[in-house]
Amino acid sequence: MSAQTDAPESTNGAGGAVGGIDLGGTKIEAIITDRSHRVLGSARHPTPTSGGPADVANAMAAALTEAAKAAQLEPAQLGGVGVGSPGTIDSDAGTVAHADNLPGWLAPFPLAAALHSALGTRIVLGNDVAVATTAEFELGAGRPYDSLLGVFWGTGIGGGLVLDGKLWRGRGAAGEIGHTVIRQGGRRCPCGRRGCLEAYAGRAAMEAHARRMHDHGAGTKLFELAAEHNRDRLTSGIWERALEHGDKVATRLIDRAVTALGAGVASAVNLLDVEAVVIGGGLGVRFGEPYRVRIVDAMMPHLFNDTRPPAVHVASLGDLGGALGASLLVQ
Amino acid sequence: MSAQTDAPESTNGAGGAVGGIDLGGTKIEAIITDRSHRVLGSARHPTPTSGGPADVANAMAAALTEAAKAAQLEPAQLGGVGVGSPGTIDSDAGTVAHADNLPGWLAPFPLAAALHSALGTRIVLGNDVAVATTAEFELGAGRPYDSLLGVFWGTGIGGGLVLDGKLWRGRGAAGEIGHTVIRQGGRRCPCGRRGCLEAYAGRAAMEAHARRMHDHGAGTKLFELAAEHNRDRLTSGIWERALEHGDKVATRLIDRAVTALGAGVASAVNLLDVEAVVIGGGLGVRFGEPYRVRIVDAMMPHLFNDTRPPAVHVASLGDLGGALGASLLVQ
Repeated sequence: MSAQTDAPESTNGAGGAVGGIDLGGTKIEAIITDRSHRVLGSARHPTPTSGGPADVANAMAAALTEAAKAAQLEPAQLGGVGVGSPGTIDSDAGTVAHADNLPGWLAPFPLAAALHSALGTRIVLGNDVAVATTAEFELGAGRPYDSLLGVFWGTGIGGGLVLDGKLWRGRGAAGEIGHTVIRQGGRRCPCGRRGCLEAYAGRAAMEAHARRMHDHGAGTKLFELAAEHNRDRLTSGIWERALEHGDKVATRLIDRAVTALGAGVASAVNLLDVEAVVIGGGLGVRFGEPYRVRIVDAMMPHLFNDTRPPAVHVASLGDLGGALGASLLVQ
Repeated sequence: MSAQTDAPESTNGAGGAVGGIDLGGTKIEAIITDRSHRVLGSARHPTPTSGGPADVANAMAAALTEAAKAAQLEPAQLGGVGVGSPGTIDSDAGTVAHADNLPGWLAPFPLAAALHSALGTRIVLGNDVAVATTAEFELGAGRPYDSLLGVFWGTGIGGGLVLDGKLWRGRGAAGEIGHTVIRQGGRRCPCGRRGCLEAYAGRAAMEAHARRMHDHGAGTKLFELAAEHNRDRLTSGIWERALEHGDKVATRLIDRAVTALGAGVASAVNLLDVEAVVIGGGLGVRFGEPYRVRIVDAMMPHLFNDTRPPAVHVASLGDLGGALGASLLVQ
């Protein structure tokens, strides 16, 4: 423990250090931060694709322990660990249910208890998109604004809303911009519904579509590239490489994703007239500024108030936004 | 003036009586209310379809004067008149611009000054949809809730939001649910964009579509019915009669409007997770409960959180909601 631990202003252990874990459909990002939100250590593990919630919890604990080690701390020395999780979160009960992009995770699983047992520090659960939105609002690209829409373009498409300086949760389930209907009767979404934005722009949906095109003989290097890089999924990096190779299937699917994002985000802006849109998520951060410009171009034809569009930014906290937001839960 | 005028609690003229005018694309509804929001008199005039803003202002003044007469009052005795107007409202300047469904109303027109000159009482301007939403929230079907989405199904499709007990205006232009993209690359909307909800469900768009179908030989009684009832437009009542006659064109267009409303409203609910949806507007109120049920049925397949749908109500203030909401501006 550092000397700061004894300082009167310290409410946390190890000089105010806390942990944050972002549980994604593809990867688990764990960080240790100090009270100024500086990252003291980090680790990234792939999210298990088989097994069940207990296996995912083990992988999370391993990632956090590795991040703590990089910060020369033991997990038990931390002031706590915040977790941003997909699915239905019950923060009071410490459970997560219906985490659809994770293996075998339907019934409520006591994630807080499992992590507490493994890490020996207090655990606070939050919604992954809500914590990432809060992070961008408090520490990132959203700082200048009172109202913003966070759009997290990754395995799925998540949305977070800050209205009048406060996170808007509705009855607890707000932000499902990925399930905006952009094409009535359109493609089947991983959620089972038709025509959702996520059916066109979510990485999981795009991978399934690319697989079908590949199986039907469409020429694409996407799966070869994944195999070369030892990936069993089409990660954001694989999509980026395929685009750099001029892969036709990848180009077509990503073009369509951008068009879909333009329509879905414009619809949300038409309804809410927020000051700013922040684009994050694995694909959003990986593709960065050139795709921010493309998404704005795709929004404009659908923006009702097109003389006064909102500011649109790439998430400035990058890949760490989710984990940073999670760490705010225990600070 | 009534005796109450001298009572200490009276801040308005004529026993607290005020006026409210709802300026719609089809009709002007004017009412006089007392401080308990009881309607003392009302009048309805058709909205001029030619001329310009000054002609519309004259028609508004005439309607309000008639309503005041029914309440045995002079307009100048009122504590004020609130106006719910479409277009871009500058309440401080007392102007309205870009009222697209009204004749020749592009540049800012000093509506407050014109009405003040004609009526001799103070005039307060507000957005038509915002005042109608506030009326349902404070006096109507929205009273039990802290968050609601008002959907006004009429000439266009307007949206109003109450979040955490307060009207949400964004940067001043929130609520454009009519321009939610429900079908990328779809039908041209009266706003000029493609695939908007309003392109499928707005009365103006449906009339234009019916006209084209009629011109191309589709059998429909819509225009005959309008002529029989001395209407130069397809009012909500004309659509209702055509449906009662089993008119195929009317049935097809209204079916499609309901499907489109289901998708658009579900998308908004997925994003905001409000407690309730209130369906108003000329068509919404005219079609009432059976269509509320149909819109809910059309929403359900697109609702992400479908085990806990929001409450959905028909606007309980009916046709008078807009004018009642306008009257709240001066109470």
